[in-house]
Amino acid sequence: MGRVTERRRILRIRDGQLSHRADTLTAEEPLEIRLNGKPLAITMRTPGDDFALAAGFLVSEGVLGAADELQSIVYCAGATADGSNTYNVVDVRLAPGVEVPDITLERNVYTTSSCGLCGKASLDAVRTSTRWPLADDAGMRIGTDVLSALPDRLRERQQVFDRTGGLHAAALFTVGGELIDVREDVGRHNAVDKLVGRALQQGGLPLSGTVLMVSGRASFELAQKAAMAGIPVLAAVSAPSSLAVDLAAETGMTLIGFLRGTSMNVYAGEHRLAVPVSGRPD
Amino acid sequence: MGRVTERRRILRIRDGQLSHRADTLTAEEPLEIRLNGKPLAITMRTPGDDFALAAGFLVSEGVLGAADELQSIVYCAGATADGSNTYNVVDVRLAPGVEVPDITLERNVYTTSSCGLCGKASLDAVRTSTRWPLADDAGMRIGTDVLSALPDRLRERQQVFDRTGGLHAAALFTVGGELIDVREDVGRHNAVDKLVGRALQQGGLPLSGTVLMVSGRASFELAQKAAMAGIPVLAAVSAPSSLAVDLAAETGMTLIGFLRGTSMNVYAGEHRLAVPVSGRPD
Repeated sequence: MGRVTERRRILRIRDGQLSHRADTLTAEEPLEIRLNGKPLAITMRTPGDDFALAAGFLVSEGVLGAADELQSIVYCAGATADGSNTYNVVDVRLAPGVEVPDITLERNVYTTSSCGLCGKASLDAVRTSTRWPLADDAGMRIGTDVLSALPDRLRERQQVFDRTGGLHAAALFTVGGELIDVREDVGRHNAVDKLVGRALQQGGLPLSGTVLMVSGRASFELAQKAAMAGIPVLAAVSAPSSLAVDLAAETGMTLIGFLRGTSMNVYAGEHRLAVPVSGRPD
Repeated sequence: MGRVTERRRILRIRDGQLSHRADTLTAEEPLEIRLNGKPLAITMRTPGDDFALAAGFLVSEGVLGAADELQSIVYCAGATADGSNTYNVVDVRLAPGVEVPDITLERNVYTTSSCGLCGKASLDAVRTSTRWPLADDAGMRIGTDVLSALPDRLRERQQVFDRTGGLHAAALFTVGGELIDVREDVGRHNAVDKLVGRALQQGGLPLSGTVLMVSGRASFELAQKAAMAGIPVLAAVSAPSSLAVDLAAETGMTLIGFLRGTSMNVYAGEHRLAVPVSGRPD
């Protein structure tokens, strides 16, 4: 189960000099998530924290919101012809009485009967399925100095990245900048699902008063996962997309991009920032 | 239709100084791909080149291999309640006689009846559905000096990235390092689909003798798309995953990672590299 990295023999070229050597790679394997025995989704992920990944995925999809709605998560043995366990198929059983929604199998499927497919429909779907309005966290304030310190704290904890350079990271921080948890995965959405699933398993949802920091860009999908987990602040090292910004504005989320040193861009929810008086905006 | 970027008002913070200003964002919108009228997949993409994206996606899935297998691609009008066109739903019609396979709706679904879900099954699925064995390109040779020049050539052509910092890029080069085509998208897999779809539309498959260069990491999914389009060399600026390396080794693809300046790591298919005698490997 500790298949987070794998070793392979490679040819290394540096300034015309060639040498063969062993190299450490990020492990990538498919994971099938079943809900009450029925195949729901497949994701390419880095093995490890698979139960948290499955639970977090179901939070993002609006199926789960509390630990007691979850009956069990198990690896499916006998998934292969010879009855062995690949540890790549998990089955999530919901507690009795928890409604099994009619989820479409694809990622990011937000079609409604009244609309074709558009960004607006995607935003509406998240808003109507969110259990915890982020407006409840309207009184939260976070200092720009605290935000500036987050990227370095995230990098300090990216253990596998240092060995492979191949992982996305996601971390949860308190409003004071203390690290709550960090996860790495070959897929950035999986890293967030693992964080959120852990929180669900520990009875920690909604994640009020927290900051989600991601190592790359902020897509609609990541903003959606933050909103569904009740995370009021999303900060990214790189750029957000238009639809991520629109979702943040619609749900009342604070969205920060290009967070590098003392520089950052605030795309939505600037009311949560504690800024020095000298730096008041024009 | 030219919605590659969008403008939003943001709060910019630099060393404690705050200012409001307009900022350019990468546009992200959902695209539903229908096959002969039936919904097949939804992807979050940067609008533009949507027909190429749909065609390239179907090459990756093994549905399309030549331009004459494609009858038409159209935007679905009337997808909304008021009959307007969101330009986010495309329908691909196959030419008469082209088999419509039973494709599962999810991304990267490689289950077989004989096996559960594992990396091996994913590799087998690609190998058995590839139309053009990469071994046919075994005689191709590419110089390490040519490879070293590719990242700069890619960056020179990343137009939208310069404005938003939010796009992944994919480019096709000849074995001599000449740029054939470059595409940018909020999703790295979409950028590759757009390249491959363009090539299909122009009757250019298989893409023998070419190099696919991607701006980020090399995942299984990107290696799969290269294999299905007959691209013998995949080069990435960052790290590959274990399953991408395994797929390259299995299909005979040359896979290069961490391509930066005169440095690179060769993970598979080193027989295609033209290396100076002085730098012979140990």
